[in-house]
Amino acid sequence: MECVSFLPLSHLAICGGTHGNEMSGVYMVRELRKQKLEKAGSVSITTVLSNPRAVDACKRYTETDLNRCFTSELLSAPITDLTPYELRRAQELNAQLGAKGSEEAVDLLCDLHNTTANMGLCFIFYSLDWVTLHIYKYIESKITSVPVRAVQLDIPVSEAYSLESVGKRGFTIEVGPQPHGVLRADIFNMVKEAVDLTIEWLQLFNSGRTFEGGELESYTLTKSIDYPRDPTDNEITAAIHPQLQDNDFKLLQPGDPIFLSFSGETVKYEGEELYPFFINECAYYEKKIAFHLARKITLTFPSISVKKDQE
Amino acid sequence: MECVSFLPLSHLAICGGTHGNEMSGVYMVRELRKQKLEKAGSVSITTVLSNPRAVDACKRYTETDLNRCFTSELLSAPITDLTPYELRRAQELNAQLGAKGSEEAVDLLCDLHNTTANMGLCFIFYSLDWVTLHIYKYIESKITSVPVRAVQLDIPVSEAYSLESVGKRGFTIEVGPQPHGVLRADIFNMVKEAVDLTIEWLQLFNSGRTFEGGELESYTLTKSIDYPRDPTDNEITAAIHPQLQDNDFKLLQPGDPIFLSFSGETVKYEGEELYPFFINECAYYEKKIAFHLARKITLTFPSISVKKDQE
Repeated sequence: MECVSFLPLSHLAICGGTHGNEMSGVYMVRELRKQKLEKAGSVSITTVLSNPRAVDACKRYTETDLNRCFTSELLSAPITDLTPYELRRAQELNAQLGAKGSEEAVDLLCDLHNTTANMGLCFIFYSLDWVTLHIYKYIESKITSVPVRAVQLDIPVSEAYSLESVGKRGFTIEVGPQPHGVLRADIFNMVKEAVDLTIEWLQLFNSGRTFEGGELESYTLTKSIDYPRDPTDNEITAAIHPQLQDNDFKLLQPGDPIFLSFSGETVKYEGEELYPFFINECAYYEKKIAFHLARKITLTFPSISVKKDQE
Repeated sequence: MECVSFLPLSHLAICGGTHGNEMSGVYMVRELRKQKLEKAGSVSITTVLSNPRAVDACKRYTETDLNRCFTSELLSAPITDLTPYELRRAQELNAQLGAKGSEEAVDLLCDLHNTTANMGLCFIFYSLDWVTLHIYKYIESKITSVPVRAVQLDIPVSEAYSLESVGKRGFTIEVGPQPHGVLRADIFNMVKEAVDLTIEWLQLFNSGRTFEGGELESYTLTKSIDYPRDPTDNEITAAIHPQLQDNDFKLLQPGDPIFLSFSGETVKYEGEELYPFFINECAYYEKKIAFHLARKITLTFPSISVKKDQE
């Protein structure tokens, strides 16, 4: 494959607190602001505390999940007295970050999340993009202390509902395990390293370095599994089985235990071999998701470099 | 020491959801109700979902911490329009469970909690009581899969603020680590085993078995340590150090790292050798507690048996 060139990536937005009880992002943004990190060489940096009301209340959201408000339709919906706080805030953030789909949008938007699942350090992509895959590959090669993985949720950009879809390019950094409302130094340091390396990559790219093409492994969401429930009251009747708990990204095979009921019975997996992730994520109880399942695929990407003035 | 005798312990209350986002207790109580476990031999069992509003909202509490409402003073305070929901509920529970300090109070109250700290299975005692120490010792000798420990918070019974002080005797079972709002099967099974063994002990005791005296180790709370904070906005400036995180009950010595600041500096412990616990408990951020410190003491207790009719 030949080398593909892109315009310089001069404007980076780093967002935390999109979910107000996910503390790594909240404290990462606060720390960057304390350091007054507004420019790093060729890269100007905007830091955003996405949902300040939810952060103050230490809740995921106050009225509706902010990270489901960034579809083109919702971003252009008229504001009325009944509009939830988070939708107002989504429109405010969209204006601040240059407007989704426009030339003014930030070049790269990096949204910081954490999970109670044992996910290590994950990059979540909503669309395939060679630049963000290169950033992932760079970070994956540099961080050896924890597993680094790519997760792909393919959604057309107009339907993409999450904050990072506002940037020209974007990804979510998801780290875990960490309880909501709690800050762990090991998890905080993972986020810090990933953010530092993202900024480093952008500077190298803008300065003219060519990044070689190659391959990477990615997990593509295929379906979600709910907890067993009592049909009379819809309450869950089982927890994630101890043999599945904390084993995110370990291949699940037919017959493997997935749930342990409160009265002691094991529920086994029936289905094709797939990779579980977001196992026992706190916020997914209300979404009726016990875990997601993914297929592992190999992605090939070309060499890239910055577009020179004469091009 | 001679053998001390006590009246039969015929009425047990098992309470969960005193903090609405601590899921082990919530699901333990639901499961006991599903099994219609109202009597086990000589023991009648009352199951209580302590804070149903907070459970529905999956929050620790709705207006004030229920588990700080059970002082004699608060339980006899007049109810007005301004009385928080949890204080009304505390008075309701006090009436239901027989009234703190009265002859009608349940014989034993066992309140189920969980924590984000790596506490294993802990029994928390608010006063020294030979019966509850025996129950602890029995369970400690039976459970080998996780560390079982006794923690002592000596408070005069009239000032004792937590739910188990309503029973003639009581203790809190505290298990962890488990994020709030999440249910882990391993943690649920710990609670189940502890509850089953408590009921077993009560039946053995009521049936006339003599339990031999002996010694046990207990951790007595001596003080609490707050996070380092920025004097300008009172925000925390550091997280628990990775070398302290998850090391509850491991002796802390002068010079050991306790905090890691967001900019990377280590804060070391200064003070006498003590045992840290409740390290990085989610709900204690608002109470300005990063961890508690305890002294380890040895308690001696006599043989006990049930009081016979002729005595």
